[in-house]
Amino acid sequence: MTTAGIDFLLLAGKEDIYYLSGFYGSRALALVTVDSAFLCVDFRYTEQAENQASACELVGSPGVLCSRLKDQLAAAKTNKVHFDPNGMSYLGYAELVEALPGCEVLPAEQMIRRLRAVKDSSEIALIAQAQQLAEASYTKVIASAQCGRTERALAADMDCAMLQDGADKPAFDTIVAAGARSSMPHASAGDDLICQDDCIVIDWGARRKHYNSDTTRTVFYGNPDPRLNEVYDIVLQAQMMALEAARPGMLCCELDDIARTYIESRGYGDCFGHGLGHGVGLEVHEAPIVNPASREVLEPGMVVTVEPGIYLPGVGGVRIEDLVLITENGIRNLTGLSKDRIIM
Amino acid sequence: MTTAGIDFLLLAGKEDIYYLSGFYGSRALALVTVDSAFLCVDFRYTEQAENQASACELVGSPGVLCSRLKDQLAAAKTNKVHFDPNGMSYLGYAELVEALPGCEVLPAEQMIRRLRAVKDSSEIALIAQAQQLAEASYTKVIASAQCGRTERALAADMDCAMLQDGADKPAFDTIVAAGARSSMPHASAGDDLICQDDCIVIDWGARRKHYNSDTTRTVFYGNPDPRLNEVYDIVLQAQMMALEAARPGMLCCELDDIARTYIESRGYGDCFGHGLGHGVGLEVHEAPIVNPASREVLEPGMVVTVEPGIYLPGVGGVRIEDLVLITENGIRNLTGLSKDRIIM
Repeated sequence: MTTAGIDFLLLAGKEDIYYLSGFYGSRALALVTVDSAFLCVDFRYTEQAENQASACELVGSPGVLCSRLKDQLAAAKTNKVHFDPNGMSYLGYAELVEALPGCEVLPAEQMIRRLRAVKDSSEIALIAQAQQLAEASYTKVIASAQCGRTERALAADMDCAMLQDGADKPAFDTIVAAGARSSMPHASAGDDLICQDDCIVIDWGARRKHYNSDTTRTVFYGNPDPRLNEVYDIVLQAQMMALEAARPGMLCCELDDIARTYIESRGYGDCFGHGLGHGVGLEVHEAPIVNPASREVLEPGMVVTVEPGIYLPGVGGVRIEDLVLITENGIRNLTGLSKDRIIM
Repeated sequence: MTTAGIDFLLLAGKEDIYYLSGFYGSRALALVTVDSAFLCVDFRYTEQAENQASACELVGSPGVLCSRLKDQLAAAKTNKVHFDPNGMSYLGYAELVEALPGCEVLPAEQMIRRLRAVKDSSEIALIAQAQQLAEASYTKVIASAQCGRTERALAADMDCAMLQDGADKPAFDTIVAAGARSSMPHASAGDDLICQDDCIVIDWGARRKHYNSDTTRTVFYGNPDPRLNEVYDIVLQAQMMALEAARPGMLCCELDDIARTYIESRGYGDCFGHGLGHGVGLEVHEAPIVNPASREVLEPGMVVTVEPGIYLPGVGGVRIEDLVLITENGIRNLTGLSKDRIIM
C-alpha cells in the first residue's frame, strides 16, 4: 500500500478478506489502513467474525464503517479512498460512492489477487489434500462406471465421494460430458445417458478448508470416432510439452504458446479456443491467467492448471488437465492420475 | 424498457441472462434492444449457447458486442447505454466504460430482478421439486443421525442424498451447526462433533434445473439448555403468526414486523438480527427482501422464505424456516416437514 501510495484500502472479495483476516463469509467489507484493519459483517456473521478475525476491529454496518473511515480521512487530511476491484460488485461500488460524499473512491490494482497467486507451504498442503480427495473420487467412480447411466449420476457419484471423504464441497460444478456433448468445454452434467463408443470429458475438483483442486481426464467407452484417438495423442503431447517447459521466470503467454503452437502444427488450432490454464487456490480461477494475452510471470509457489483441449463440434472433445506447482527449477505435478488413454 | 426510456440494455447477471435467453453459464454478457438480443460468450460456451439461446444473435467477445452496439447507437442517434446492475461486477462495468468511449454507461433499475420475483407455474413446479428433494434428504438423514458424528459428516450425508435423488447440487453450503455453534446464523458445517444435549440448526436446500429451495429446521439431541425450549416455542409462534398473516398487497416490512414484534414482546428482540426472509428462485437470495426496511410489496407468484430465529451466544440458537408461495388469497406453504420440536 505504501509503495502504491494508498492509505485506505477497501476490500469486498470474500477470498481476499479470508486471506487477510481469517473470516470467511458470503458477504463482508473490510478496510485496511497502514496500521489498522476493520471488518464489517452483518448480524448473521458477528459471532463467527469475532472468532475468526480477532485482529480486526468489527463494525456492524457499511454505514458505520464509512463513518469511521471519514473520521480517519479527516485526520489524515485526504479525501482519497481506494478499493480493490476484485470481488467488488457495481452495486457495492455505487453504495460506497454514495456513503462517502466528497471522497474520491478509486480502483486500485488487484493487490490481494497478486499476493494470493504465490502460495505458502500450508496453502500448498491444502491444495494437495484437495487434489488427493478429488483423485480418490475419480478412481472409485471410474472403477464402477457403466454405460446406461446419466452424466448427472456419474457427477453425483464423484461429488458424493469427495464429500464423504472430507471435502468442504466440490470445487465447482463437476463436468461430465459424454459423446458429442464432450465438444462443449464447459458442458454441465445433464440427463443424457453414457453410451457405448462415447468419449467422456470429466472435469472436477474438491475444496478442502477453502482451497481448491482442478483436474480433467478424458476416457473412452469402447471405440469413439477415430479422429478422437488422434486428438487424444495431440492433446497429451501438447500438455507434456508445456509441463516439460514450465519454469519460473517464464511469461504465461510463452507457456500457453508451447501447447498452442504444437496443436496448430497438427492442424487443430481453431479447435483449442480457450487458454492453457489458470491459477488455483481460494478461487478455482485466480491469478495467474495462462493464455495468449497474459504477460504475468510464473513464480515459485504459483499453482496453475495446464489443460489443453481440442473440441470437434458434433463429434466430441478431449481435454487433459493437470494441476502443478511452480518450483524453483520447474514444476511439481500435484496430479497423480495416469494420462494413458483409458478404454472402458 | 420503453416505459423506462431505455433503448439499449446490457446484462451481466448469469441468472438474469438464463431467465431471458435460456443460456446458463458462469460468464456472459447480453445486449437487449427493443427488437433484438445479442449474447456474448467465450469459446467454452459457443456450442452450448447456440443450442440454448437460439433467439439471440451470438457474438464471440465483449469487443465485438460493443462494436455492434456502437453501430446501433449511431443509427439511433444516441450515446446512452444502460446496464442492469444485478450481477455486474465493478471490473465488468469498467471494461464497458472503456470499450464505449463517448457513451454514457448508466445503471438502470434492476429490471430483470423484478420480473424474476414473480414466478410462473413452471418455475413454481421446479422450486417445489427442489423442495421435495431437500425434504427427502432431511427425512433420510435425520432418521439415522447419531451423536458422535461431525457437523460436516451430517451435511455431507444431506448433500449426497440430494445429489443422488437428482438435484443439480445443493442450493448453498448446507449449514449444520451444533451446540453453542448454533447461535451463529450462518455457521459453516465444521469438524465439531454432535454431542448429547446439543441443539442443532440445519439450513439446507436443493437446486433442480437451476431453481432452488431453502428450509431450516432446529432439532434437539437430548436436553439442551432449557432456555432453548422457550426460544423454540417463541420462534415457532412468531413464524406461525407471519405465515398466517402473509398475503398479496402486504409490504414486506409489514410481514417482517409481525414476527419481529412478537419476538420483541417476549424479550428477545436483540437476538433476532436478520431479516425475516427473502425471495428464492434462480438465486437463493433474490427479490423480494423481507426485512424491516423493505418497501417491496408481496404479489401472487412470489416465493419467499419465512425464517425467524433467536440466537443466544454461548448457548445456542433456533431458526425455523419455511418456503412459501404467495397466492391470490394468502400463501401455499411449499414446505411439508413437521415443525414439532424433535428430540432425538
